[in-house]
Amino acid sequence: MQTNQKIALLRSEMASAGIDAFIVSNADPHHNEYVADRWCCREWLSGMKGSAGTVLVTADWCGLWTDSRYYEIALDALEGSEIELIRASDIGVPTIDSWIKSNLKTSQTIGFNGADTDLKQARDWIKKFDQANLKTRSDLDLIDIIWKDRPAAPKGELFIVDDSYAGQTIESKISTVRQEMKSAGVEAYLLGRTDESCWLLNFRGTDITAAPTPYCFTLVTQDNVNFYIDAAKLTPQAKSKFEAAGVTIKDYNAVKTELEQLNASTRILISPNHISYQLAEAVKHCMQIESRLIVTDLKAVKNETEVKHLKQALIEDAAAIVKFYTWLYTSLRNGDPVTELSASHKLEACRAEFEGYRHVSFDSIMGYGPDGALNHYCVDEESDKPVLLENIFLIDSGGNFTHGTTDTTRTIPMGTPTQQQKEDYTVVLHSMLDLLLLEFAEDTTGAQLDGICRQALWRHGRNFKHGTGHGVGFGLEVHEGPQNISGTSTEKMKLGMISTIEPGCYRSGEHGIRIENMVHTVISRENEFGKFFKFENLTFCPINTDLIEPSILPKNQIEWLNNYHQEIINKLSPYLNKEEQAWLTHECRPINQ
Amino acid sequence: MQTNQKIALLRSEMASAGIDAFIVSNADPHHNEYVADRWCCREWLSGMKGSAGTVLVTADWCGLWTDSRYYEIALDALEGSEIELIRASDIGVPTIDSWIKSNLKTSQTIGFNGADTDLKQARDWIKKFDQANLKTRSDLDLIDIIWKDRPAAPKGELFIVDDSYAGQTIESKISTVRQEMKSAGVEAYLLGRTDESCWLLNFRGTDITAAPTPYCFTLVTQDNVNFYIDAAKLTPQAKSKFEAAGVTIKDYNAVKTELEQLNASTRILISPNHISYQLAEAVKHCMQIESRLIVTDLKAVKNETEVKHLKQALIEDAAAIVKFYTWLYTSLRNGDPVTELSASHKLEACRAEFEGYRHVSFDSIMGYGPDGALNHYCVDEESDKPVLLENIFLIDSGGNFTHGTTDTTRTIPMGTPTQQQKEDYTVVLHSMLDLLLLEFAEDTTGAQLDGICRQALWRHGRNFKHGTGHGVGFGLEVHEGPQNISGTSTEKMKLGMISTIEPGCYRSGEHGIRIENMVHTVISRENEFGKFFKFENLTFCPINTDLIEPSILPKNQIEWLNNYHQEIINKLSPYLNKEEQAWLTHECRPINQ
Repeated sequence: MQTNQKIALLRSEMASAGIDAFIVSNADPHHNEYVADRWCCREWLSGMKGSAGTVLVTADWCGLWTDSRYYEIALDALEGSEIELIRASDIGVPTIDSWIKSNLKTSQTIGFNGADTDLKQARDWIKKFDQANLKTRSDLDLIDIIWKDRPAAPKGELFIVDDSYAGQTIESKISTVRQEMKSAGVEAYLLGRTDESCWLLNFRGTDITAAPTPYCFTLVTQDNVNFYIDAAKLTPQAKSKFEAAGVTIKDYNAVKTELEQLNASTRILISPNHISYQLAEAVKHCMQIESRLIVTDLKAVKNETEVKHLKQALIEDAAAIVKFYTWLYTSLRNGDPVTELSASHKLEACRAEFEGYRHVSFDSIMGYGPDGALNHYCVDEESDKPVLLENIFLIDSGGNFTHGTTDTTRTIPMGTPTQQQKEDYTVVLHSMLDLLLLEFAEDTTGAQLDGICRQALWRHGRNFKHGTGHGVGFGLEVHEGPQNISGTSTEKMKLGMISTIEPGCYRSGEHGIRIENMVHTVISRENEFGKFFKFENLTFCPINTDLIEPSILPKNQIEWLNNYHQEIINKLSPYLNKEEQAWLTHECRPINQ
Repeated sequence: MQTNQKIALLRSEMASAGIDAFIVSNADPHHNEYVADRWCCREWLSGMKGSAGTVLVTADWCGLWTDSRYYEIALDALEGSEIELIRASDIGVPTIDSWIKSNLKTSQTIGFNGADTDLKQARDWIKKFDQANLKTRSDLDLIDIIWKDRPAAPKGELFIVDDSYAGQTIESKISTVRQEMKSAGVEAYLLGRTDESCWLLNFRGTDITAAPTPYCFTLVTQDNVNFYIDAAKLTPQAKSKFEAAGVTIKDYNAVKTELEQLNASTRILISPNHISYQLAEAVKHCMQIESRLIVTDLKAVKNETEVKHLKQALIEDAAAIVKFYTWLYTSLRNGDPVTELSASHKLEACRAEFEGYRHVSFDSIMGYGPDGALNHYCVDEESDKPVLLENIFLIDSGGNFTHGTTDTTRTIPMGTPTQQQKEDYTVVLHSMLDLLLLEFAEDTTGAQLDGICRQALWRHGRNFKHGTGHGVGFGLEVHEGPQNISGTSTEKMKLGMISTIEPGCYRSGEHGIRIENMVHTVISRENEFGKFFKFENLTFCPINTDLIEPSILPKNQIEWLNNYHQEIINKLSPYLNKEEQAWLTHECRPINQ
């Protein structure tokens, strides 16, 4: 079916339901980063892929709001359709609600699906539309009516994470959560984010490629733990493990009704960002306590067992990358053609050689030359381009292992780098090491760390438009909160957190540079001024030195780099063959200032 | 009357009104930093002075919540009274609302004065008490009933700021505000903060010592500007200037009634932090648009005229400090006794020599030796101590001039400094200059800048517990938003903003060090990565070099300091006599690494 046909069908349903404007996005009931096909409603309606985009349809107009990362992709997707592209990153462009307020008439009705919209967004729309004397309906899933071949919810089997990897039993975790609930004064706590359930009940899923968290909810009270999941996903082993821990298995779709049946005096924890509007309405009769998500805070602080396993995962990850690099240069020097896509497949194959590897932790960014400057470049058969022995090559990739989630970015020269490439690269490395080698006070926020990382780039008149780093889950999502190293994050860096540091420098149409290591927050010292923390480096993957302009790099960073490379040779060599070892030794040769 | 007698009277009024717990704080209807005596209800009731403290009285208990800055002061004030000190900064100590929820019974009633409580605080209390099935009343001013000799509202005469200082006429400012109101989609805008009215209508007041903003409100619509003020404060000149600009003078107390009479369809701008609960209730029938305060954003960006005048004010301010220092050292070397208080008076007298000086911009912090380590030390006759030729002396002071508000901190040695003092001092200076000399990207937040400033201190195992800097008003409040350089401020630094940079290092019982300059955000460069900003230094007051340990300071900072001191000699000498010039020349001698 063509986009315009779908729009026409939607309009017909809107007319029947008395809806004057309908909002369609790609969102699932859990506010997950990766969404199963079933919930990709905007993508189905408009044909536009990507993580950001919202379609608005009225009786005589329709538009798709997206940010500058996706302008090109959206333009291609919308060609031939009546959907207009609204460039949401541009100055002066109205937001979707401003557009609605300016273009709809008093008493007209706006519809959206409250089952897939988080409470915070829904509240904001309802309030704004109400102020403009517009009506709102959130109980309609009009896309479901017209999407005849809509995919079913996925049924991927889940698997148990052994206590020897998790470092804490399900029983112990439940007990910790119940204690935190008491401190927060709440009696019921719905784990709405799927990774919360995975952490609490020590399992992972296979519903969505590159996302280890299956569709499920958990409701914890002092007496019960109800786990809402499609029973088809449970192996007998998983079932008995859950039952032994006192967990009751319930049907995924029962959650709404069971929430509605909670006693009205129940004090239930609500996080407006992480509960759908529909489920928030289901507990409207209870005493809602708006608070931080308990499990989000607990799982961000990794235990010793998790850190031990992650360290091993990162060594294997780096060995895989070295194997890949050896193959890449050898192939190209032998005249064998390599493309971004074939390189991506090879890199995954190198990771898959290691036991415990499950899948990529996110779609690899294989940015050769100008493609490296596209921040969210995702190679596919259409965008695929040859890799040559000329420009520089940015590779941002990671693996989801049973023993940890990895995320590594390196930028390598494929030919002789230009002076500008060397300067860009060296300033990025300088920034990365400024943060990696920092000592900082307890209670330091993500924004403070972000500023420190950018300092060297700013001094050289450069900057990058993405965040500096993010938390990483243990065998869970590669982007995990609450910490976030960005200019507006007031979250504090806590001991035991695992984060990335990944500054970059991008020149549109020319090249992109990013260097990313993962780090573990550890104690540095304690004195009369309080506690001080530092980062323990976890990534041991060579940082190319042909791209370094030594005069820009501080002396202590050059020393650090030479020691780092010696350590890498020691750690990775056992996993490599002779050819790979030779490549690594050359790549890790010391440099002088 | 003794505190316990006042508490007894309050309990009697509480009983008559059916109130089980009553909350008393020092707050006025504008949420001002400096509060006139009339609104110092907590201070009157408990005897405890200071900017932070809240009393809770129940039928059989009363407590005063305050933070660690005020523990000692509160203990002294509460001695002999039944009020218990609640150490709010300590871990595990309940907040006032948690205490209430734990100690009151269902259906009991909590009272507070909604006229002096901001909407955000009131909403939070009402919501929390409601969740605990407690009732709330906000319409009672019980203190007013029992405080028989309560001071009247001040009647300080206001004065006009000439356009040649303001740099923009009242008419032009009103027109700018109306344009911003259109963009924000609001039809009415109550200027609830008193400094908003001062800026808009180019006047200052004399209601409160060290605070240039008198009690008043302004209500702006597209048709009218109503200025609510006690008419006794208006000179004929001021009256005619306002009338010529189309401003209607109304009685201060009429604001509530007039807000109640606004048309229900009026879209009124509300900022929950800056409107009292009572006035928010008065416009409850209108369409409330919660948004940023328009004038707060406008006045933070200083115009060229303001900056030009402020630069002159800061030169005069520095000359006054040099005169003071010359007097201080001469007096002590002559054997004349000097105390913190007498020094404070002398410093003010030195500033008052300059035309346009009105009053201190805040109570001077004169911290000799251990007193310098008390972050909010305020010298008075009780705390006064002699200044000797031994320890180091932290002086944080400023003046409110017609042509600008100043804020300068310097730390000077009175004898031979210890190595630790030199190291502390040098690291603080390093931190201050790291930020002052920074180049940073547009959209950089206060938290990013804060992190950069602390970096050198952290590296040396030191830290300080206050913010790094704040905005400064033009002849207005010395602490002015929206920008704030602190670990949790996500406000962006804009071109034209005036801020302080004031890192410190404090050793309890020993000494305190702080060095503070004022800076102006200006453009540095623009390229394909965007705009870059830097700080223009505005403070030209010598930075003592006897306290510097040169091996800690980067070479470029030593060079900067030597140039800075040469510039200071050039700028300040014309204002100084021979003796002062000689002192300055010695103080500004170059140093080597």
